[in-house]
Amino acid sequence: MSERSYAILGTGALGGFYGAKLQKAGLDVHFLLKSDYEYVSQSGLVIESKDGDFTLPQVKAYNDVEKMPRCDVVVIALKTTQNHLLPQIVAPVVRDNGVVLILQNGLGVESEVSTIVGNVCIIGGLCFLCSNKVGAGYIRHLDYGQITLGEYALGYDPTGITQKMRQIGDDFARAGISIELAEDLLLGRWKKLVWNIPYNGLSVILNARTDELMSYVHTRKLVEQLMYEVVAGAKSCSRLIPDSFIQTMLDYTVKMKPYRTSMKIDYDERRSMEVEAIFGNPLRKALAAGVDLPQISCIYQQLKFLDQRRKVGDQENGFFLKD
Amino acid sequence: MSERSYAILGTGALGGFYGAKLQKAGLDVHFLLKSDYEYVSQSGLVIESKDGDFTLPQVKAYNDVEKMPRCDVVVIALKTTQNHLLPQIVAPVVRDNGVVLILQNGLGVESEVSTIVGNVCIIGGLCFLCSNKVGAGYIRHLDYGQITLGEYALGYDPTGITQKMRQIGDDFARAGISIELAEDLLLGRWKKLVWNIPYNGLSVILNARTDELMSYVHTRKLVEQLMYEVVAGAKSCSRLIPDSFIQTMLDYTVKMKPYRTSMKIDYDERRSMEVEAIFGNPLRKALAAGVDLPQISCIYQQLKFLDQRRKVGDQENGFFLKD
Repeated sequence: MSERSYAILGTGALGGFYGAKLQKAGLDVHFLLKSDYEYVSQSGLVIESKDGDFTLPQVKAYNDVEKMPRCDVVVIALKTTQNHLLPQIVAPVVRDNGVVLILQNGLGVESEVSTIVGNVCIIGGLCFLCSNKVGAGYIRHLDYGQITLGEYALGYDPTGITQKMRQIGDDFARAGISIELAEDLLLGRWKKLVWNIPYNGLSVILNARTDELMSYVHTRKLVEQLMYEVVAGAKSCSRLIPDSFIQTMLDYTVKMKPYRTSMKIDYDERRSMEVEAIFGNPLRKALAAGVDLPQISCIYQQLKFLDQRRKVGDQENGFFLKD
Repeated sequence: MSERSYAILGTGALGGFYGAKLQKAGLDVHFLLKSDYEYVSQSGLVIESKDGDFTLPQVKAYNDVEKMPRCDVVVIALKTTQNHLLPQIVAPVVRDNGVVLILQNGLGVESEVSTIVGNVCIIGGLCFLCSNKVGAGYIRHLDYGQITLGEYALGYDPTGITQKMRQIGDDFARAGISIELAEDLLLGRWKKLVWNIPYNGLSVILNARTDELMSYVHTRKLVEQLMYEVVAGAKSCSRLIPDSFIQTMLDYTVKMKPYRTSMKIDYDERRSMEVEAIFGNPLRKALAAGVDLPQISCIYQQLKFLDQRRKVGDQENGFFLKD
């Protein structure tokens, strides 16, 4: 058994799934919860998965980071829209010389976290996961699940494959999660944006599934143009993504089952969308290098409008804001 | 009384309104109709207008251009989405040395018409009109009504103020319609696009009124960026629009009553949108001059998707396509 203990900050569709897999594999896992705390601390977690269902009748559940033990690995599994909480919740849980593992979308969170905790190793993880939380402590894993890990160094300098990455990769692999190790975290994050920026953005703005976006010639073309702008953004950070990668992503999406993106699900379920992490930060990163990404900027402004008008409308109508 | 006779091709919210005003002022007007032909030929036209209601119990109505007399002025008052009909319907109605007056949005229709009729004068009219057809032969005029006239010459060379423009301007002025004469039709068309491109496009894509687009900071900014791209498009055609015009349009829109754009009304009423005339033609015109307009292109592709998906959906659901 591994000596490493894990804290899962955010026990939702993603954190709940990976945390449960780690505990099932015999690791020591501590779960931070908010609304589901009462239920999960009494009844545990249920994972319905295409790879086999399982239940964990007992989990170590917390509703306050101050009550959690310091862990070797702190997994940030919140949506980025909750990242204003990080300064309070990360530092109390991570052990000196421990690891903060950031399983979030978009750009820039690693450098943000590096300013709030010292003397830790920061690893970013790019998750390719389809899962939903369908009830308190009840997670439905639909498809995929692999994670690409990359270590953060100051200024996102490539670190190569490090020992910490290997250790964490081994723990996840033992839990049955497919792991890839990346030598360059920032390159990995930009590559993931090649998919996320066009499909997440357009799915919300045009109320469309991936198959619809791919079956009409104009959105098919717009998706491709947006991908080229992401590649230009990566290049502004000295990360080269070959054009062939764009074709691979397009082909891959055509072959996928019709898919409602995570941002579309957030929007439909009246949650904040991760517009800043996925669109705002990459745009600002490229702009700082003197590179304008006009079509991504157009999508960003449309999404900000939809996000903000929704919030104003919900406030006026007395809707409960989920986050 | 003027000697000029008028043919109105398309007796809808726009053609019906202007044609009725001309007839009321004593001019000889002939109306081409489609679905409302039976009703209007028996009952005439009703105009409910902020400038005073009136009825025309008898109008010269036609459902076939071959039955119409050749007129001095043929007014094209169809939506541009109907322009595939022009080759059949314009030539039989216009008198030799007559005028074709194109009261349509967007770019490029004058040069199109010039290839289908010879030996006529082509004048473009930019209408600032809020009106709706609320029933057969029943038009509600809500606001504005002024027209800017400009004459077409080969390659859109500026013509200055011509005698034909003055004559038609006089007829409309006699009918109580405010007229401005423009020395450069193409400049006038690009100036109108400074308003039409951002507001028509975003109102459909974001399901928003003008006041919503102006009250959120991100769409306010996107509108302005789109306006700058229209100015760049105009410049690619050697037409200079000063930056101050953008500020004027923004201020003007903030002061307007909350407004649902004509393209949004078309979309809501399941009619084809004028995407090619307002977006496609300006984009192609700029591109031919080597100028890329990436944000307008993004909006264009989003609108084409919405327009085409709607049509496919309507066909599958057996909806009657209005045009």
